[in-house]
Amino acid sequence: MAVYTDVGDEELDAFLAPYGLGTLLAAKGIAEGVENSNYLIETERGRFILTLYEKRVKPEDLPFFIALMRHLVAQGIACPQPVATEGADGQVLRRLSGRPAALFTFLEGLSPRSVKPWHCAELGATLADLHAATASFEGTRPNDLSLDAWPKLIEACRAGADKVSQNLAGELDSAYAAIAEAWPEDLPSGVIHADLFPDNVFFRAQTLSGIIDYYFACRDFLVYDLAVCLNAWCFDGAHIYQPDRGRLLLEAYAAKRPLSEAEYKALPVLAAGAALRFLLTRLYDWLNHPPGALVRPKDPREYLAKLRFHRLAKGPQSYGI
Amino acid sequence: MAVYTDVGDEELDAFLAPYGLGTLLAAKGIAEGVENSNYLIETERGRFILTLYEKRVKPEDLPFFIALMRHLVAQGIACPQPVATEGADGQVLRRLSGRPAALFTFLEGLSPRSVKPWHCAELGATLADLHAATASFEGTRPNDLSLDAWPKLIEACRAGADKVSQNLAGELDSAYAAIAEAWPEDLPSGVIHADLFPDNVFFRAQTLSGIIDYYFACRDFLVYDLAVCLNAWCFDGAHIYQPDRGRLLLEAYAAKRPLSEAEYKALPVLAAGAALRFLLTRLYDWLNHPPGALVRPKDPREYLAKLRFHRLAKGPQSYGI
Repeated sequence: MAVYTDVGDEELDAFLAPYGLGTLLAAKGIAEGVENSNYLIETERGRFILTLYEKRVKPEDLPFFIALMRHLVAQGIACPQPVATEGADGQVLRRLSGRPAALFTFLEGLSPRSVKPWHCAELGATLADLHAATASFEGTRPNDLSLDAWPKLIEACRAGADKVSQNLAGELDSAYAAIAEAWPEDLPSGVIHADLFPDNVFFRAQTLSGIIDYYFACRDFLVYDLAVCLNAWCFDGAHIYQPDRGRLLLEAYAAKRPLSEAEYKALPVLAAGAALRFLLTRLYDWLNHPPGALVRPKDPREYLAKLRFHRLAKGPQSYGI
Repeated sequence: MAVYTDVGDEELDAFLAPYGLGTLLAAKGIAEGVENSNYLIETERGRFILTLYEKRVKPEDLPFFIALMRHLVAQGIACPQPVATEGADGQVLRRLSGRPAALFTFLEGLSPRSVKPWHCAELGATLADLHAATASFEGTRPNDLSLDAWPKLIEACRAGADKVSQNLAGELDSAYAAIAEAWPEDLPSGVIHADLFPDNVFFRAQTLSGIIDYYFACRDFLVYDLAVCLNAWCFDGAHIYQPDRGRLLLEAYAAKRPLSEAEYKALPVLAAGAALRFLLTRLYDWLNHPPGALVRPKDPREYLAKLRFHRLAKGPQSYGI
């Protein structure tokens, strides 16, 4: 939601020259993604997104993300295409203003600000396509924000947690213990998006037109992506679960990749785990953002409400199916 | 530099419908202007800027700003064109998300991040054209950030000023007294832009291609616009005056509208006044921004350095002419 790095005009001209895209016509810092700096670039050859990777993305992970995006485009998924510089040794990952940077094709479409049930049906179907497409992708990256990471985040937040919600530190401990105890061992796995929030999904004319922001992609249970989506798409503004949205999401997905009984059974614990993941990273940012920071941290309590819902879920039937 | 107001998708669709611009293809919050929320809107008919007016702009001033922009476009100035809804009673000023809002044509071009002397020559020539164009504009609005406003701003900043720079409160008092004493009474006047910073000026292919952000426009001495430009364009990153830039700015302007001897003579006091104006508003924002605000306030001390330069200027020859 902010431009972090201000790029000088000569720097930008020099950076863009080797792509052979013609004259630069406009460049606007845009409010897209909270992790990186993004510019909408217009040249004689069309529109592009220029991303500068800020400190939250590990530089050593960037080749994985870029290779994944190239693979997805080749498989027909509506994903920004990494653009290489001209010539036989064309480069995608470059540097600008002291940061890793890359250029991507621009995807048209609008992110929904108020989610409707039909969005969830479109999302479920495309997510199954995405998982089918990543099946042939060989890159790998562990999910560094899953089970193993949560105890460290809980410790980092312990001192400030109870100021955010009464007895929150104790609730995090007991939620973690229960989730770790019930976490499944063996479910169909593959490369997942792992951050499929409405901000990262574009729609045009009642159709999903693109998925962006692959910078949390990792290898994990496929159904964990659905658990993230249940959290991010299927609660209303008062954090009340909306079974019609969840049902459409899960049914549209399962119509393309049927879920096993073990996957359905794992939905509550995976959804609780996904809620705990976003609760912990938001809580950490809430407690640790510098005064005067450009980005206003998101309220972690939204995910506390969602975590409680999932911990009380009786089984997959609690999700509307 | 930030999107303040987050517009819902249904609200946006409903707002755009009466313009008859076809299907909405994309909408991105952009980092343009620090006073208002701006979206870059793309529809089947082209690109537009949607501006939502936040609290710093007085709603009662909006008809003046819109009328000025329409006038400038009609006079051939490269200014965003206010777009009216369809029909005989087409409206420009409307409401969206509880705020006044208007749609404008999109101007191509790039704002310079590092100013070169040729930018200043282009700026001077276009500023003379702008002043020629406003000569036939009948609207009026006082400059509410000029001489009369500064004592109140100094009082509002007095308590915190000395924490920003040693004895700053005393320096503001003496600067104000000296500037008020020497302020000219009678110079050629008209409607001026009054905020001509590089952020508000676009260039394409070594030519000035557009001037935006008319929300400080007011009736004042024409040469005060040049005094603002001397501050905003003619110092380097270390706040050292660059006489080559100032000379090109003033010569290019005077080639189209010759300056009188009284106008040349007033340059140091008007430039000191302009520096004091930006020093005071930045200082006020610096002392009063809420913690966690989305916009990081600009360092006021840049304008303290510029103010000191102008107060020590011996006459117009100090500006490189």
